[in-house]
Amino acid sequence: MNKFWSSAVARTEPYVPGEQIEQEGLLKLNTNENPYPPSPKVVAAIQDELGRKLHRYPTPSVDRLREKIAEFNQLNPEQVFVGNGSDEVLAFSFMAFFEPGKTIRFPAVSYSFYPVYAKLFDIPYEEVPLNRDFSLAWDKFFQSDGGVIFPNPNAPTSLYLDNKHIIDIIENNPNNVVIVDEAYIDFAKESAVHLVNNYENLLVVQTMSKSRSLAGLRIGFAVGNPNLIEALNRVKNSFNSYTLDRLAIAGAEAAIMDVDYFHETTKKVIHTREWVTAELKKVGFTVLPSDTNFLFIRHYKINANEIYQMLKEQNILTRHFNRPSIESYLRITIGTDEDMTTLIDTLTLCLCQKNKASAN
Amino acid sequence: MNKFWSSAVARTEPYVPGEQIEQEGLLKLNTNENPYPPSPKVVAAIQDELGRKLHRYPTPSVDRLREKIAEFNQLNPEQVFVGNGSDEVLAFSFMAFFEPGKTIRFPAVSYSFYPVYAKLFDIPYEEVPLNRDFSLAWDKFFQSDGGVIFPNPNAPTSLYLDNKHIIDIIENNPNNVVIVDEAYIDFAKESAVHLVNNYENLLVVQTMSKSRSLAGLRIGFAVGNPNLIEALNRVKNSFNSYTLDRLAIAGAEAAIMDVDYFHETTKKVIHTREWVTAELKKVGFTVLPSDTNFLFIRHYKINANEIYQMLKEQNILTRHFNRPSIESYLRITIGTDEDMTTLIDTLTLCLCQKNKASAN
Repeated sequence: MNKFWSSAVARTEPYVPGEQIEQEGLLKLNTNENPYPPSPKVVAAIQDELGRKLHRYPTPSVDRLREKIAEFNQLNPEQVFVGNGSDEVLAFSFMAFFEPGKTIRFPAVSYSFYPVYAKLFDIPYEEVPLNRDFSLAWDKFFQSDGGVIFPNPNAPTSLYLDNKHIIDIIENNPNNVVIVDEAYIDFAKESAVHLVNNYENLLVVQTMSKSRSLAGLRIGFAVGNPNLIEALNRVKNSFNSYTLDRLAIAGAEAAIMDVDYFHETTKKVIHTREWVTAELKKVGFTVLPSDTNFLFIRHYKINANEIYQMLKEQNILTRHFNRPSIESYLRITIGTDEDMTTLIDTLTLCLCQKNKASAN
Repeated sequence: MNKFWSSAVARTEPYVPGEQIEQEGLLKLNTNENPYPPSPKVVAAIQDELGRKLHRYPTPSVDRLREKIAEFNQLNPEQVFVGNGSDEVLAFSFMAFFEPGKTIRFPAVSYSFYPVYAKLFDIPYEEVPLNRDFSLAWDKFFQSDGGVIFPNPNAPTSLYLDNKHIIDIIENNPNNVVIVDEAYIDFAKESAVHLVNNYENLLVVQTMSKSRSLAGLRIGFAVGNPNLIEALNRVKNSFNSYTLDRLAIAGAEAAIMDVDYFHETTKKVIHTREWVTAELKKVGFTVLPSDTNFLFIRHYKINANEIYQMLKEQNILTRHFNRPSIESYLRITIGTDEDMTTLIDTLTLCLCQKNKASAN
């Protein structure tokens, strides 16, 4: 603490993102990126924009990208807000819809950025325990004091909640905003996006970092009733007029328009996820049924931190959370088929050596 | 107002940026962009990065860019913070160093985003009137309750304040942070950057949008004592882990390293500014002595809004502020020599027709 710091800084407990190591030969399965590069049309669109007017400000209202996102989701542009990654969209949402003095709720095991935002903006919160099978205890979110936020599918558990339960949560919070953070929804069943036409208190947040292969470009968006979108615009326009740069806007437009590439890569990730799940079960892992591009797994015998360390020594980076409720689990991003073959082979070898060592 | 809006949203009075019209044949002299494209090395660096890993997250700590900025300014990387445009850096600074309940001070005629931030973050403020010649009344900033922020050179007045007066302000605010917003400093005399080695309460904010020709890429930075930089990092890491995308980082690194191109284009803008100033004086304008890439001018006879409209009809966009203290002035960005010849010719013609009309 320093005498020049504000009380907001004093309150912060900054989020610690997964390790971003750039190292030749490292298999990076720790931050849920898509293993496939973005659509060639994205690269072409950025190339094209690069030759234009980088010395000119970008559009502050980002109309065309909002139109494309609306079109893809069969909504109106007035129902769409875009931001510099879904983290920024979430930060603006905390400012726009949650209130100091009114307790919000989110799952006890969830995206660990939520309590970080809450501390920064001085918003009290209640962490709602998951059910024993890690599923969301949806009825525990009814009648919140200050609002609700949860990821669907949840992270790091990878579990999906059906829209009928989401509707229950929305209908039982008539005076508060319910934020559904759909970072991983494209690897799951149905999105809640179309529900924004029926519920004025629903905000759905998505990102292009996962299913659109654009983690490096920082684009997120929210859809909701135009009144909610206006609140986000007011916050954004009181914070930073131009949050998306010209190249990111051009890339994002191309990404949302290349529906074929999106379906193709998403399908590949899901296909890989299914066979990896089966393989991991064969070597003694419990694998939660994933609707995401990652797996949340636990070995019947060897503890997760040990597996994390063994894999790291073999140049495979996964993510282990040092929190009591989930410390026995490891989160592994779905890579290409080749990546996952390497993972399975390495894991099998490690477990085998470990078994031998304990037998001696 | 809507029942789902937070009190923060209710407080907002969003900033209105200059018109961003993309129109063939429009001469855009309204938002102080550099008329020259960025260095070819910037474009090459982005090209190179584009072929790499757009599907991977960028670096959250942005170490290499911070090193380059530190090197250019003869500072240490621990004294440097980077953000998504200087507007984001300023927003984080308001959160990190200013406090609800403690009144900050900024000039009454100044960057109109300051009161917008203050309202969003609920920080009371006092607007300090300028001297009659529009210069900053620096001694009126002594012993502030909650901190001080001002641009140097000031905008939209274009006037520069000497470092000795800045030191006076810093030394007379020993318990508060003084933020010097140097968006236009590269077109002026000496920066206050090196003073951060002597004063732990000084934060200097700069942007790559003006002198580095990168308005479209959104890069800003702050330099200060490592304690202040840590506060900014805590806020940033409680808000958005990755505020700069991969392409922006690559472009910014190349921009800061191409010192020759930077000096060359900056010199050209200053040269143009000087002859345009002389020409405008010849046709009856008062021109404030500019240390920026824009001019703040007033005609002895015709009102500024009328000139703004006349120019707009001729496809030349300038900026007129509808505020009592400066409504008689027009702000005009320095373009290329060709742009400014068009401006002068058009102005001369308009004034001539106007004179004829009033003579009839």
